[in-house]
Amino acid sequence: MADYTFYTNPMSRGQIARWALHEVEADYDQSLVDWAAKSPDLLTANAMGKVPTLVHHAESGDRVVTEAAAVCLYLAEMHPEAELLPSDLEIADYYRWTFFCAGPVDQALTAKALGFEPNGPRQEAMASFGSFERLIATLDGCLAERCWICGDRFTMADVYVGSSIDWGLNFGLLPPNESFVAYAERCQARRAYKEAKAIDGALIAEQGKS
Amino acid sequence: MADYTFYTNPMSRGQIARWALHEVEADYDQSLVDWAAKSPDLLTANAMGKVPTLVHHAESGDRVVTEAAAVCLYLAEMHPEAELLPSDLEIADYYRWTFFCAGPVDQALTAKALGFEPNGPRQEAMASFGSFERLIATLDGCLAERCWICGDRFTMADVYVGSSIDWGLNFGLLPPNESFVAYAERCQARRAYKEAKAIDGALIAEQGKS
Repeated sequence: MADYTFYTNPMSRGQIARWALHEVEADYDQSLVDWAAKSPDLLTANAMGKVPTLVHHAESGDRVVTEAAAVCLYLAEMHPEAELLPSDLEIADYYRWTFFCAGPVDQALTAKALGFEPNGPRQEAMASFGSFERLIATLDGCLAERCWICGDRFTMADVYVGSSIDWGLNFGLLPPNESFVAYAERCQARRAYKEAKAIDGALIAEQGKS
Repeated sequence: MADYTFYTNPMSRGQIARWALHEVEADYDQSLVDWAAKSPDLLTANAMGKVPTLVHHAESGDRVVTEAAAVCLYLAEMHPEAELLPSDLEIADYYRWTFFCAGPVDQALTAKALGFEPNGPRQEAMASFGSFERLIATLDGCLAERCWICGDRFTMADVYVGSSIDWGLNFGLLPPNESFVAYAERCQARRAYKEAKAIDGALIAEQGKS
């Protein structure tokens, strides 16, 4: 048995987790999830029935990790040899921008995709992203001044933040600011990114044929 | 100067960060943020102008952390002596449930508070929380079977998850399931929780008078 069982669907946030799995060169088996008939195994591991869901067959027993960002950070911890963990100097940015994307950015882009926008200051204060314009300006300010999230060095935070930017640009939910496009291109040049996207791309093409 | 400058407002997600600061017994100065006139200092640290924003005056220079969950996890790392970091056996749950609350739960409760609910399976798949009922059942399943998020021991994940549950119950956004109420009560019994809430409570009472 491989070290990990990876429940995914190629057209989902599972793409983020696959990129992370390849960054750490993890030994994994994939289990493709059919939205219409979710397996009992998946529902036992994750009652939400969502992907990505990762089961780590550790020596001490199976451990379940859900939520794409959690899967990324967990894999970085389990594979320190991949050198994607933050140093003491990098950890503030590592957590700050990962949670910024997992919370406000995801919430804002989802709201936009669903045609919902907060109305007025009271709703803006309740929604974690506040105004969409301020969110874009903050993200632009972050990426315009650095190569990677923690500075000069790629870390696991870039897998999650990079995926958010990539997704936002691909779906037209983020404006094509120069800082966003250049950062996405740096991410796309990673070997692990290319490997992971090739697998998901091939699966999507197969699904299209059937 | 104290080790940390803590930008907050007593009626905000800043309450989560204050609880975390007290759990690690951090040395901090608070800077109360007036929504109508945000200080240039705050806007320099965080272009979103949001609270909590934490500036850590580290020996190597100032570091900024934003997003309540990131502040919690960062403080746990900076204060290992508080023993709120996860062990290798606990880290899957630590990340999984922290991100579950920072993403799907926050998104679902915010959407509910704003009167927005996804419509049909396509919208449910796009929103990270899927259906509200499944989210509640998953959270209930988690909390019904354990004392704390990582098992028998309180960790920093409980500050964030506990705050989410507490907020959801207080605002009537979560149903008063036995597992939620019992977990919230365990959290409320923490010394650091009481200290932090007493400070924010007094600030709210003062604001009410002026």
